[in-house]
Amino acid sequence: MKLKNLVGQRFKERPADCVIDSHALMVRGGYMKYVGNGIYSEYPILRRITSKIENIIREEMNAIDGQEVLFPVVMPADIWQESGRYESIGSELVRFEDRNHSKMVLGMTHEEAAVQLVREYAQSYQQYPFMIYQFQRKFRDEARPRAGMIRVREFTMKDAYSFHTSQEDLEQYYQKCYDAYNRIFKRVGIPEVVTVASDSGMMGGSISHEYMLLTEVGEDSIVLCKNCDYRANMEAAENIVNNEPDGEKQELSCIETPNCKTIEEVCTFLHSDVKKSCKAVVYQKNADDTYVVAFVRGDYEVNETKLTNLVGEALHPAEIMEDSPLVAGYIGPYAISDQVTFYCDSSLKGVDNLVAGANKEGYHYTGLNLERDLGEVTYVDIAKAKEGGICPCCGKPKLTIKRGIEVGNIFQLGTKYTESMNMQYVDKEGESHYPIMGCYGIGVGRLAASICEEKHDEYGPIWPISIAPYEVHLCCIRPDDEETRNVADQFYEELTKSGVEVIYDDREGVRAGQMFADADLLGVPIRVVVSPRNLKENMIEISTRDKAVKEMVAKEESLAYILALREKLYSDMQ
Amino acid sequence: MKLKNLVGQRFKERPADCVIDSHALMVRGGYMKYVGNGIYSEYPILRRITSKIENIIREEMNAIDGQEVLFPVVMPADIWQESGRYESIGSELVRFEDRNHSKMVLGMTHEEAAVQLVREYAQSYQQYPFMIYQFQRKFRDEARPRAGMIRVREFTMKDAYSFHTSQEDLEQYYQKCYDAYNRIFKRVGIPEVVTVASDSGMMGGSISHEYMLLTEVGEDSIVLCKNCDYRANMEAAENIVNNEPDGEKQELSCIETPNCKTIEEVCTFLHSDVKKSCKAVVYQKNADDTYVVAFVRGDYEVNETKLTNLVGEALHPAEIMEDSPLVAGYIGPYAISDQVTFYCDSSLKGVDNLVAGANKEGYHYTGLNLERDLGEVTYVDIAKAKEGGICPCCGKPKLTIKRGIEVGNIFQLGTKYTESMNMQYVDKEGESHYPIMGCYGIGVGRLAASICEEKHDEYGPIWPISIAPYEVHLCCIRPDDEETRNVADQFYEELTKSGVEVIYDDREGVRAGQMFADADLLGVPIRVVVSPRNLKENMIEISTRDKAVKEMVAKEESLAYILALREKLYSDMQ
Repeated sequence: MKLKNLVGQRFKERPADCVIDSHALMVRGGYMKYVGNGIYSEYPILRRITSKIENIIREEMNAIDGQEVLFPVVMPADIWQESGRYESIGSELVRFEDRNHSKMVLGMTHEEAAVQLVREYAQSYQQYPFMIYQFQRKFRDEARPRAGMIRVREFTMKDAYSFHTSQEDLEQYYQKCYDAYNRIFKRVGIPEVVTVASDSGMMGGSISHEYMLLTEVGEDSIVLCKNCDYRANMEAAENIVNNEPDGEKQELSCIETPNCKTIEEVCTFLHSDVKKSCKAVVYQKNADDTYVVAFVRGDYEVNETKLTNLVGEALHPAEIMEDSPLVAGYIGPYAISDQVTFYCDSSLKGVDNLVAGANKEGYHYTGLNLERDLGEVTYVDIAKAKEGGICPCCGKPKLTIKRGIEVGNIFQLGTKYTESMNMQYVDKEGESHYPIMGCYGIGVGRLAASICEEKHDEYGPIWPISIAPYEVHLCCIRPDDEETRNVADQFYEELTKSGVEVIYDDREGVRAGQMFADADLLGVPIRVVVSPRNLKENMIEISTRDKAVKEMVAKEESLAYILALREKLYSDMQ
Repeated sequence: MKLKNLVGQRFKERPADCVIDSHALMVRGGYMKYVGNGIYSEYPILRRITSKIENIIREEMNAIDGQEVLFPVVMPADIWQESGRYESIGSELVRFEDRNHSKMVLGMTHEEAAVQLVREYAQSYQQYPFMIYQFQRKFRDEARPRAGMIRVREFTMKDAYSFHTSQEDLEQYYQKCYDAYNRIFKRVGIPEVVTVASDSGMMGGSISHEYMLLTEVGEDSIVLCKNCDYRANMEAAENIVNNEPDGEKQELSCIETPNCKTIEEVCTFLHSDVKKSCKAVVYQKNADDTYVVAFVRGDYEVNETKLTNLVGEALHPAEIMEDSPLVAGYIGPYAISDQVTFYCDSSLKGVDNLVAGANKEGYHYTGLNLERDLGEVTYVDIAKAKEGGICPCCGKPKLTIKRGIEVGNIFQLGTKYTESMNMQYVDKEGESHYPIMGCYGIGVGRLAASICEEKHDEYGPIWPISIAPYEVHLCCIRPDDEETRNVADQFYEELTKSGVEVIYDDREGVRAGQMFADADLLGVPIRVVVSPRNLKENMIEISTRDKAVKEMVAKEESLAYILALREKLYSDMQ
């Protein structure tokens, strides 16, 4: 391919609306084009990358006995009504009516379609286990698309669904898929991806893992232990707090705290430690707007995912109205209105002599001792883990918080979908059961962008050779010089004949600096420069995009050198 | 792959709702699964076929310098408003609002997206010509999905868009694409596909061709000449009629024709030849319901596509109301209300002494001579060509009408999209112009179904080896017999090692008849049967699905025989 024919423009200036580097570089390099909010087209250079990623994923899915299928993007609402998700999912799920006023949805995931495809087929235990997967476009009407290809509304996803007759069999297969995912991330060039325990969210099921690329620009918070292997998404991370008793329990007193509406203001006013305070965070149930109050130790934050799972219903931050039973800024667990549901986080367990709201405008309690003053208290885990927190695995106070991009996920779904959609099989004894499912996703475009985020410098991406748009970027400096052009043309031909994927820059009237800047933006791993100056010495310049190699090689030895270098780059990834 | 693990059930009974054979066989063989009206999932066996078709198309598109891209399925309405198609396309185009009440559409074709992708890139003549293409899901809300994968609402399409700086350049590229399409249809096993001139319809542009697979079950009518190479879609076929004069022009008389509302009734009543009558067919404009009357010779039918193109607006068959200026059943061109637009088809040219409606309840004219009685008459071509009609190419009365399935199309679009979306380039002289476009489509699923329709017998599809789901179907009859199983297992291993795609049926307790019926439904080109009876003679049975080969081969020679047969099947397709 000649660079001058490659569709997609490159430019120098960083676009103002690009927050993260990969987004800026992929726009500047002619990889992607904005079509609408969270919707992009892929230029040829990106399509080559995503195709290679797809092929790697496909090979690994086939290697664990996956069978490729294809589900539709547009589905009738009825199968989503069967599973209950037509009602339970919010506005991320696009619903519309077709010309005959039938209700339709745009697939944002395909559990329903998977069950619909196989429920007549898989009626005997002998047909289990099996796994089906597809590559298909998905549309999720995200409230806040961001960071280019990282969080979009439309994307290509590999989604896989496995079906089993026992939990043990699912777990065995889950482990196979877990390993296949690790191979995939290694093969696409980011072996540094880690797995974390995650929350299952709208997917249902129990055990699940996310594959995280740790990076400052990630939108997920990951909790890791510096002492052991514990890793979890913040949403799922258990929070453990050990409080020391004061020794002496003070009396409960209600005191005036004028204009102290936040816990920090109260503690400053009372010269009290925030760790000895009880903070109230108020939510409302989406369904009926009733209030739910979460009490946590003053220095902790509420983990909304854990709270939602506990309540079992969708919540939103509360708007406290004049006529509500809550006194905004002065809410505490003692003498709170019995119209309000409240939960006490385990960070409050064992704290003596708390400061807490008095449920009365302008007043707080001091000397609150929950178990003494409230009677029986059930502590629940609804706070976010913190830096330096106690690891739920090894018990050491070695937790640390990092940011990450989720590049894949695997879920043990259980029978959520097979039960709701009435898929059954008959076992050896003739008894009917619901099969147990797992599901396994990877977003292709997000993975490409994540690799770019992890592998780039200020000039452009540094694509791993396994997924690079081309293997060799050949620059002919001064193609108007006949000998130089002849040598470069011949290299192009010989490399292509040897099965090497070459992008060839033979543009006339383009300065070497511009050629190199363009090559940097395309991020092809091997660069070969043919120039009149080097040819005088009978030399060709060969380098790698990551700067690990930069050699002058005799013209006659160059082809062999390039082929060997290419082999080496592939084998370095093994 | 072992057949017992293949996801997708096969069954014997022809489903009642399948009208055409390919649909019935692809449902019976576990290829496709109904999800909703005109919406299907692909089982693994079909996905293997569609993947192979995609790869063949991809190779041919790359061979004519196509660059693969990817456009989104969901697009903001604004680019469709730019082209004007947001308003001009009917309810086939799905429109919906996203969570922020922005108007969106589901892509049913991607001209707008293609222009949007490249209009900033291709601003200099030096960047032309170029072609971009994609494989992507499309959704068209068809009124009447039918015939399984032949006419669906959601489908995978390869759509390509080329951009040029001159009509000559477009025509040159168009020819390249024309040839590439012929290679594609040959490579997928249906070289019998013919090209026909077609109507451009909603795509705009002038010259266009459709690739038609001629078959009784096709939904398109094709006009072919038995004497020359002329071929056109009925929608676009010119109709030529040479009428002989009577010699004597009768007087115009208005006579009573009670209860004669159809032209046949009138002609029977008057003992007159239908060829000497003038038939009225009434339409209304969609926009304002005004009437448009098409007059054709009594034995011709109106070609609605040609009429619509002539009027330049969408039409529908009329409902004639009481207060309308038309007298239903008695409409004729003489003394017709001047509130009505009417057209005379060229089949009426030169017919003397016509019978025609008198625009008066219960009366017709006889002896109508259009030019004498109406003054100047402009004849237009708005009738359908007929069996035995005159060929517009060679002039012989050798036209014949056949049915066909459209498996591909190519269009010269002109500047319809580049003008409306303001895409311009600067030429050598510094002047701005709108580039000229071509577009080129192939529906992947429809192509698979068409191949099945063309290549099947009553027992199942007969897939050409280039797109077959597997190359060899290996049956082990009596896998409970140790020697038989060992031999079959070894074949499976050796064939797989040799790079052959094998589906292996080693199911226990399944009769040979059932195995062969399943093999017929899967339509794999080479069948290898290992059975105790043949092994006694040291023989293996090797046959082809199309019955051209059926041999007993000595066990030791079988592997070589199969490999040679496989090579031969591929080379037969060259």
